[in-house]
Amino acid sequence: MSGQVWAHVGQPFESAHYDLVVVGAGRMGAALARSLRELAPHCSLLLAEEGGLPNEEGATILAPGVWHADVPPGQSARAEETRALLGDALNVCGLLDLSTEAREGFPSVAEVWTPELAALIDPGVLPFARPDRRAGTYSAGSVTLADANAAIASGADLMLNVRAELCGTGVDGLAADGVAHVRLHRLSVTNMHEVIVAQSVMVTAGRLIVAAGAAGPSLVEAGLGLVTPHRTAYRQTPRLEVGSTPSSPVLRHAGLLLRPRDGGYTVVPPIPHPDPWGYVPTGGRLVGVPVGLRRETLDALLDRMDGLSALAGEGLVPGRSIADIPGAWIALPDGGWPLWQRLGAAHWLLLGGEHADLTGLSVARELAVGLAG
Amino acid sequence: MSGQVWAHVGQPFESAHYDLVVVGAGRMGAALARSLRELAPHCSLLLAEEGGLPNEEGATILAPGVWHADVPPGQSARAEETRALLGDALNVCGLLDLSTEAREGFPSVAEVWTPELAALIDPGVLPFARPDRRAGTYSAGSVTLADANAAIASGADLMLNVRAELCGTGVDGLAADGVAHVRLHRLSVTNMHEVIVAQSVMVTAGRLIVAAGAAGPSLVEAGLGLVTPHRTAYRQTPRLEVGSTPSSPVLRHAGLLLRPRDGGYTVVPPIPHPDPWGYVPTGGRLVGVPVGLRRETLDALLDRMDGLSALAGEGLVPGRSIADIPGAWIALPDGGWPLWQRLGAAHWLLLGGEHADLTGLSVARELAVGLAG
Repeated sequence: MSGQVWAHVGQPFESAHYDLVVVGAGRMGAALARSLRELAPHCSLLLAEEGGLPNEEGATILAPGVWHADVPPGQSARAEETRALLGDALNVCGLLDLSTEAREGFPSVAEVWTPELAALIDPGVLPFARPDRRAGTYSAGSVTLADANAAIASGADLMLNVRAELCGTGVDGLAADGVAHVRLHRLSVTNMHEVIVAQSVMVTAGRLIVAAGAAGPSLVEAGLGLVTPHRTAYRQTPRLEVGSTPSSPVLRHAGLLLRPRDGGYTVVPPIPHPDPWGYVPTGGRLVGVPVGLRRETLDALLDRMDGLSALAGEGLVPGRSIADIPGAWIALPDGGWPLWQRLGAAHWLLLGGEHADLTGLSVARELAVGLAG
Repeated sequence: MSGQVWAHVGQPFESAHYDLVVVGAGRMGAALARSLRELAPHCSLLLAEEGGLPNEEGATILAPGVWHADVPPGQSARAEETRALLGDALNVCGLLDLSTEAREGFPSVAEVWTPELAALIDPGVLPFARPDRRAGTYSAGSVTLADANAAIASGADLMLNVRAELCGTGVDGLAADGVAHVRLHRLSVTNMHEVIVAQSVMVTAGRLIVAAGAAGPSLVEAGLGLVTPHRTAYRQTPRLEVGSTPSSPVLRHAGLLLRPRDGGYTVVPPIPHPDPWGYVPTGGRLVGVPVGLRRETLDALLDRMDGLSALAGEGLVPGRSIADIPGAWIALPDGGWPLWQRLGAAHWLLLGGEHADLTGLSVARELAVGLAG
């Protein structure tokens, strides 16, 4: 039997108790909810999300959606499980890992050369390439939507447009009574396009899991008084107008990905370090000229233009304002990899972040198994 | 014969030509100007500074002023020369490099224990300490003032309260005609405390050296169209109200310094990474409570509180607003160490940054020798 969905404040909702509350219906929260309904069908579950499915301002909708096998040994089982969970959602187009130097396992780029690469790569600078034929691309947004729908179809309740505020009890706010308290602020938009809180309701939960992406650690800190070591960064993914097809491989060079998408490429720069708290993303300036790309994004591109010659061409869309360039805050979990963490008697934190494409679904599954067991 | 000083716009100044123009009278620029007057007394020299001597908003006045010998092999000759150039300005109080683990050259902290350390260190967490008895402290501001005064006394001209704008000529703006052009905007303050440009004059220079600290790379980029790999960071140095004397050693743990100063300590956190362009420093929040310290500064302290127990005590002054905590932008030169760089026919960049305390004076001297030779 399907669960109930509250999409807007016109639908009445009163305070309630759930066995499980998941805060955040991005890819981590939606995958967790789906697995929990499967593994613990006797537990009532509420999935609460600040935006829509997927949230237009969240990291899920802008995730590169690139799976590959180049992960540390400790992460490879999770990566393989994530690939299995993706199933048909993965478009196996392969990935070329480019290198300036001869390395073991990196044959000459000539062995994998196709005419379309000529528009992207300077083989004089990047003469070596390791193919990962099992790699592929997927839409993290579609996977999230499918997971959330499956959770609802199997009995989860979903509330959209609702902001969660964790309410502490006991020492460190960590549910000394064994029950988690969360205040749900139902949001509405006025005629003046102002987001307001239309109703606030208190919900209690046997177990509460914060899966709110980059916002998760600050929710935990503000509500429970618990400082975590996790960080956040703002990532922009500009577009490169160079032709691609669904079978074009993903290209990787020095941590930067060129991800084929919709007949062109999405440029996914590496994240060198966290952004400070209080930083507001703005466009950058290049030799004094304002562009929509952040200077940090520009720097990452400048460093890699020699080998990926297309980045220096007219196909790169740097934007005239930051609104022209897709970007989102993403979590940087301590240690760099998706993780879950028990915070107290009734509270858990689930974080995807930069490498959620590779192991996120498996980590969400792992937590669901733990919670159901 | 002394040079001329223009401290305010009431003193007339018309366009002029100098053999040498140094932009920035922080510690790097002042040291360079002093050495240039000594090594090239026949060359006319103008030192231009946006603030006073030292600039109250610059990094020099807030520099820790700690010299020690723990530098990479490639920097040790420069570090020793810097120590020699400091001369009597260095207060040789020693430094204790604290360690959680037994390491070569790190005896037990008991061997160097003094009663005053009990208020600062938990010897259970930090049982080992390597003393650097040649280390010491100095005031970077005083050294800068002495250098600038010596330069003027030996014939350098100085213009204060003047903002420099590099004006390019030729390809890449780099003085194709062999002469550097710089527009000097003389600043004044209105009755409304508004900083305005009261006069702009064009100065030409046989050689122009940008020694403007964190602002240097953007001056070069905006004026000459030359992108550099250097970065900047905002560093706060809160105060710790735990008693110190002039003979108290500097303490170091995991990159954080406790620098004895005026009967207490200045806390100098490590700089983990650059701040993004467009970031405006704000105070931080700790478990939801706003404090004057940035969150990044707080994080650095939290990570080190176990060993440096005083950081967790009431002696730490976190401030109620960012104005309560001294802080300044500092340059992060590519590679991390003070450097000079030739930009073109008539332009040089001189950068001190995070480690200017250790090798800055030597690098400024090195450039002076090169320019004079």
